[in-house]
Amino acid sequence: MAKRNAFYAQSGGVTAVINASACGVIETARQFPDRIGKLYAGHNGIVGALTEDMIDTSCESAATIAALKHTPGGAFGSCRYKLRSFEENRREYERLVEVFKAHDIGYFFYNGGGDSQDTANKVSQISERLGYPITCIGIPKTVDNDLPFTDCCPGFGSVAKYVAISTREAALDVASMCETSTKIFILEVMGRHAGWIAAAGALAREEAGDPPHIILFPEIKFDREAFLRKVKASVKDHGFCVIVASEGAQNPDGTFLADSGGKDAFGHTQLGGVAPYLAHMIKSELGYKYHWALADYLQRAARHIASATDVDQAYAVGRAAVEFALAGKNAIMPTIVRNPGPEYSWSIGEAPLSLVANVEQKMPRDFISEDGFDVTAPCMEYLRPLIQGEAYPPYKNGIPEIVHLKKVKVEKVLNIPFSVK
Amino acid sequence: MAKRNAFYAQSGGVTAVINASACGVIETARQFPDRIGKLYAGHNGIVGALTEDMIDTSCESAATIAALKHTPGGAFGSCRYKLRSFEENRREYERLVEVFKAHDIGYFFYNGGGDSQDTANKVSQISERLGYPITCIGIPKTVDNDLPFTDCCPGFGSVAKYVAISTREAALDVASMCETSTKIFILEVMGRHAGWIAAAGALAREEAGDPPHIILFPEIKFDREAFLRKVKASVKDHGFCVIVASEGAQNPDGTFLADSGGKDAFGHTQLGGVAPYLAHMIKSELGYKYHWALADYLQRAARHIASATDVDQAYAVGRAAVEFALAGKNAIMPTIVRNPGPEYSWSIGEAPLSLVANVEQKMPRDFISEDGFDVTAPCMEYLRPLIQGEAYPPYKNGIPEIVHLKKVKVEKVLNIPFSVK
Repeated sequence: MAKRNAFYAQSGGVTAVINASACGVIETARQFPDRIGKLYAGHNGIVGALTEDMIDTSCESAATIAALKHTPGGAFGSCRYKLRSFEENRREYERLVEVFKAHDIGYFFYNGGGDSQDTANKVSQISERLGYPITCIGIPKTVDNDLPFTDCCPGFGSVAKYVAISTREAALDVASMCETSTKIFILEVMGRHAGWIAAAGALAREEAGDPPHIILFPEIKFDREAFLRKVKASVKDHGFCVIVASEGAQNPDGTFLADSGGKDAFGHTQLGGVAPYLAHMIKSELGYKYHWALADYLQRAARHIASATDVDQAYAVGRAAVEFALAGKNAIMPTIVRNPGPEYSWSIGEAPLSLVANVEQKMPRDFISEDGFDVTAPCMEYLRPLIQGEAYPPYKNGIPEIVHLKKVKVEKVLNIPFSVK
Repeated sequence: MAKRNAFYAQSGGVTAVINASACGVIETARQFPDRIGKLYAGHNGIVGALTEDMIDTSCESAATIAALKHTPGGAFGSCRYKLRSFEENRREYERLVEVFKAHDIGYFFYNGGGDSQDTANKVSQISERLGYPITCIGIPKTVDNDLPFTDCCPGFGSVAKYVAISTREAALDVASMCETSTKIFILEVMGRHAGWIAAAGALAREEAGDPPHIILFPEIKFDREAFLRKVKASVKDHGFCVIVASEGAQNPDGTFLADSGGKDAFGHTQLGGVAPYLAHMIKSELGYKYHWALADYLQRAARHIASATDVDQAYAVGRAAVEFALAGKNAIMPTIVRNPGPEYSWSIGEAPLSLVANVEQKMPRDFISEDGFDVTAPCMEYLRPLIQGEAYPPYKNGIPEIVHLKKVKVEKVLNIPFSVK
């Protein structure tokens, strides 16, 4: 088969380990110089393809590429940009073909969550619709853990570990202070539509009864009275109450708790505020002193305490993407498969992009306790292996070392501006 | 000299390394069985002394005591309780003497910040005022780094490291997304009156121009126009803007920015909200998409990424407290002394409790840049050594192992209830 160039890009919210997937793609591609020529990384995801703005990864040393494995964020820039359908915006697809043709790109690797797999799926239709042969592989990534078919999503295990550790540490703090001071601690975590990250708070426990005492999921409508009863009971039983709340927690009418607050000084509805909303509710109804934290980007960027399992899986799906492409597979996404057996082990499977795109895998109901405020034993069994191992980055001067790419731009061939919006 | 028992307690907001100080006290006391009998830990600080509620640390194994070194929070319970003066509440001091006498306590070790050193100082006056001989040593601890005489405060180095790492990681996240999404990231950190923790955000940088681009200190009155100009310039120059804001940032009239927000759904003024306040201001005035995080207890409990230097110093002040007491010193607090010379090294000094109590050491003006939005080179030189080294805790099942004390209570001798409030 003729040697052709490849395109790789990162898309959507980044993670602590998305660059480990990039590392897997690039290191593997370099092993097949007779099949893959240059590997170009899109600057800011698909936008880099549309605007002919690409980074030549062949200019980066092997050491640099290896160091991607311990650098959080998206090394080549990510984007929130969704391709419309062929019918709606055929011009975008034609442009992609022009760029791919100009740079002899025969492989398209797209690293992202549900929206990004939709983009990958659409690009995979280019061969048939526009007659340009391209092999298209999606690479899973999302802290939300909501992609279908895969046992878990690279990025999630590290957030889960961060949330479990943070919950455990903060709970020890509250426990020390609760007699004369703070009795309530609320940690707000990500997960707008699925409660996987909130569920990971339960991994903070060593024994039943350990904090967190309450977990709020987007999948369960918020029951204010039951919640307040549970807070009160926890303070009575333990002296304090630790709550892990998903940012996506919802009122019975389907509105977000985060949107239930008051107006800020600028007249906007308070945003990102499940934690303060709950804190004030508790103070108002039960009078307890509270503290709350909102981890936001800290949780998904926390490479310093990444799960070794997660880093391995992120690398493996990158490697598998290239191997699948070279094996002649197309329009698929590598998945993580949990092998049967008492000991956790995993292997790589695959799923068609057409079925992956735009599907959100929420928490199954039997992973959530009957009262809706906790996880179940099967959920713990599912989650626990994903946070195993500490993949510490190297340190320099007290802070984690990160990679600095040369980011040599690929010379433009078309050099015709293309506007994306 | 006759052998007498000792009392140790933890006070005020706890830290990731206060138990390392406890470990230093207990391990050292055990080395002098001919001088120190039992070491009793107050359950919930001084409250434990007043209520004759104490834990017999002699029931804990050497391995358990050693494991305190990697367990965050206050293992014996802390408190926010300030003794009033002799004149205002002589009864409290008499009660302390009754408890000390009943348990033959001749050494009093009190581990805390400014308020706690005030308590230690007051207890040190018992010998003279009430004729009960007791040796009283304060042990420094505070994430705020605001105790006088000591070069730094145990607890601070670990928070500083956490804030530096978190800022660095989150900045990589924003940098990846800024072209098509979030342009502003704000991290709100602790430090109600002193900006040391916010300053530590600057340690995230490798080179000038690296994030964070703006730091807000309680020591500098907030200049709204200058701030917005700097945000805009940062987005223009770098594509994004990372801000580390102290919770204690103040308006020109001395009110807290955190109190400048609107009302919440319960009619309360928004609290703990410098970050959302600034975020909405930026959105409102400049239109940029933002994210913000509020680390709260996560930062001061983050033992998983504690500074090895900080852990060593926390242990050393605990050990020194016992050594000072046995050397016949009284009413002092061990301090960290920065030795002269090009390489960072430190030793233990001492300061009289009477001068330490209730003094807040703020950031010197020459540690803050002229425009008030950054630190200076001397500040960086001061801060950098404090975050060196990663004192990783052991892990089990994917989460840090913590110690479980037996907490055998000392049998009450007085057994007379005493009410504290």
